[in-house]
Amino acid sequence: MAHKLAMIGFGTVGQGLAQILLDKKEGLRNLGVETQLVAVSTLSKGSLYHPEGLDLAELLAAAKTGSLAHYPNTPGLQRGWDNLKIIHQSNADTVVEVSYTNLTTGQPAIDYCRAAFESGKNIVTANKGPVALAYHELAALAQAKGVRFGIEGTVMSGTPALRLPLVTLAGNDIREVRGIFNGTTNFILTKMEEGLSYTAALKQAQELGYAEADPTADVEGHDAAGKVVILANVVMNVSLAQSEVSCRGISQLTGADIQQAQAEGKRWKLIGRVKKEGAQVIASVQPEALPLSDPLANVMGATNAITYECDLSGPITLVGAGAGSAQTGFALLIDLINIARKNL
Amino acid sequence: MAHKLAMIGFGTVGQGLAQILLDKKEGLRNLGVETQLVAVSTLSKGSLYHPEGLDLAELLAAAKTGSLAHYPNTPGLQRGWDNLKIIHQSNADTVVEVSYTNLTTGQPAIDYCRAAFESGKNIVTANKGPVALAYHELAALAQAKGVRFGIEGTVMSGTPALRLPLVTLAGNDIREVRGIFNGTTNFILTKMEEGLSYTAALKQAQELGYAEADPTADVEGHDAAGKVVILANVVMNVSLAQSEVSCRGISQLTGADIQQAQAEGKRWKLIGRVKKEGAQVIASVQPEALPLSDPLANVMGATNAITYECDLSGPITLVGAGAGSAQTGFALLIDLINIARKNL
Repeated sequence: MAHKLAMIGFGTVGQGLAQILLDKKEGLRNLGVETQLVAVSTLSKGSLYHPEGLDLAELLAAAKTGSLAHYPNTPGLQRGWDNLKIIHQSNADTVVEVSYTNLTTGQPAIDYCRAAFESGKNIVTANKGPVALAYHELAALAQAKGVRFGIEGTVMSGTPALRLPLVTLAGNDIREVRGIFNGTTNFILTKMEEGLSYTAALKQAQELGYAEADPTADVEGHDAAGKVVILANVVMNVSLAQSEVSCRGISQLTGADIQQAQAEGKRWKLIGRVKKEGAQVIASVQPEALPLSDPLANVMGATNAITYECDLSGPITLVGAGAGSAQTGFALLIDLINIARKNL
Repeated sequence: MAHKLAMIGFGTVGQGLAQILLDKKEGLRNLGVETQLVAVSTLSKGSLYHPEGLDLAELLAAAKTGSLAHYPNTPGLQRGWDNLKIIHQSNADTVVEVSYTNLTTGQPAIDYCRAAFESGKNIVTANKGPVALAYHELAALAQAKGVRFGIEGTVMSGTPALRLPLVTLAGNDIREVRGIFNGTTNFILTKMEEGLSYTAALKQAQELGYAEADPTADVEGHDAAGKVVILANVVMNVSLAQSEVSCRGISQLTGADIQQAQAEGKRWKLIGRVKKEGAQVIASVQPEALPLSDPLANVMGATNAITYECDLSGPITLVGAGAGSAQTGFALLIDLINIARKNL
């Protein structure tokens, strides 16, 4: 029987997943995964619910017009249900939570997760808020209700930074995780090494859509710190609050700093790090001048990377994109595949 | 109930796994994995079988003396069973096949795999021979018998080069896999870049134990070609013979070649590659001068690395050790963990 999905939010990421489900229907069936999107609920475009499934091509076409009102009427179609009504009352097995991210309160996504678990539905999400701020509470609730909390997309998008340590490196004691978790700042540092000033590099990142008009969350390290908290919670299995991450961004780095590092055979990177020291866990985000022999030193442009220090496997580094609609759509998909396979 | 293991071969890798099972007993139990080593069979050190389990500390101590004759007698202990008798008649659930590698015939390991599957036992192995030469036959037999064929250790040792694409990148169409699959040649190239001649670099690799007295299999690319065949068989799901891999090693590279690449901002690497082109699969091992912007160009020393070209996630690169007793022991362990978890 098809696995029924309800989507909360239908922006770039949600549409990315819908496009993948449409394009890969056959291939996914070969992997034992058959899905049916029964509901889409948005704040700005309206909402749709059909217990027997929505037409993905019609849905994507309607979304492009800016309003789900353009989705054709069919018998049994419900319009206008709000997010919580869809979570509570739809026949979905899994809620794909792709509403907006708030790293201060985690809301409304935390409430959506709670509601889904209370209703016996799995959550699959790329939203950092609930995982950075309420991971242990939500994971325990999901476990108590016998449902799943899929969070692969919350760190490094479609590069499996969470499932790699949990599934394919299981059995290792991972004493430290460090990485480049913010593509915007890595792009800026790459451009500064090419000779641009910080201001000019930031401007170029904004023109290319990598950085927002207010770039604070990226350049001051807050976005990376949120991912450090998630890695601490999920991979190191400790409870860490974002306020416990010592956090410094790249806005004070000068061209002279960049050149001095180059002269010393080093390269500045904004490194997020979480490390077990005895019973303590130390977490930080800060610019570090890495020797070029470090795999992280050679990750350029908007790419992300992560190194796990494993007692048996040694250092393992994973390099890949940290954003993108197909990439984040994939992160949601791999959680759905593993729920269907009843795997971690 | 404990998962019972029989080990065929007890060299560095087998002892590495036994040490891990001894050291991590408690941690593995927390992962839901409880194992009991019931048999060890070797050609040179003798063999032991006890249906209720061997003592790991005593076993490792005996192995250090060079003969399992020094393992203490206990009621019920059997000595001198040969490999096939242990595979057929022991009460093991899983045979850990760590005998010697033969990339020409795959024997005797292929026969051991067949015997294990016919007896309803799983195989976990780090032996490239059976996977390079008989993967599809053996995988089909394992499936028919309802048992598992664990092969993570056959490529890149404890760096999960096979489980990463199969489990955590599932759903992607992987059109190309390329990488540095031989640590010895990468070490030699690194030393040549530091100014050593090929001959001097090879000598240093031999002194450090990276290269064998007859270095042909490494330096002419045959070892890397075996891994390319495994990646084609397992990750790309095609049938490829080693003779179909166009193969050239590094023995013809000169200091002048290295310097010219450096002058062009490039670096020579021995790259194994398998690529789908329409219905065709093209496989090669050859030295390639990569631009320094390629993540593979920055992998130095004996380290290995692999890049998967994914349609959704984009290029994903994994960097880690490609050899070592703890590393290969881990590769066997992760297969055991996933068999216990009934996961891929």
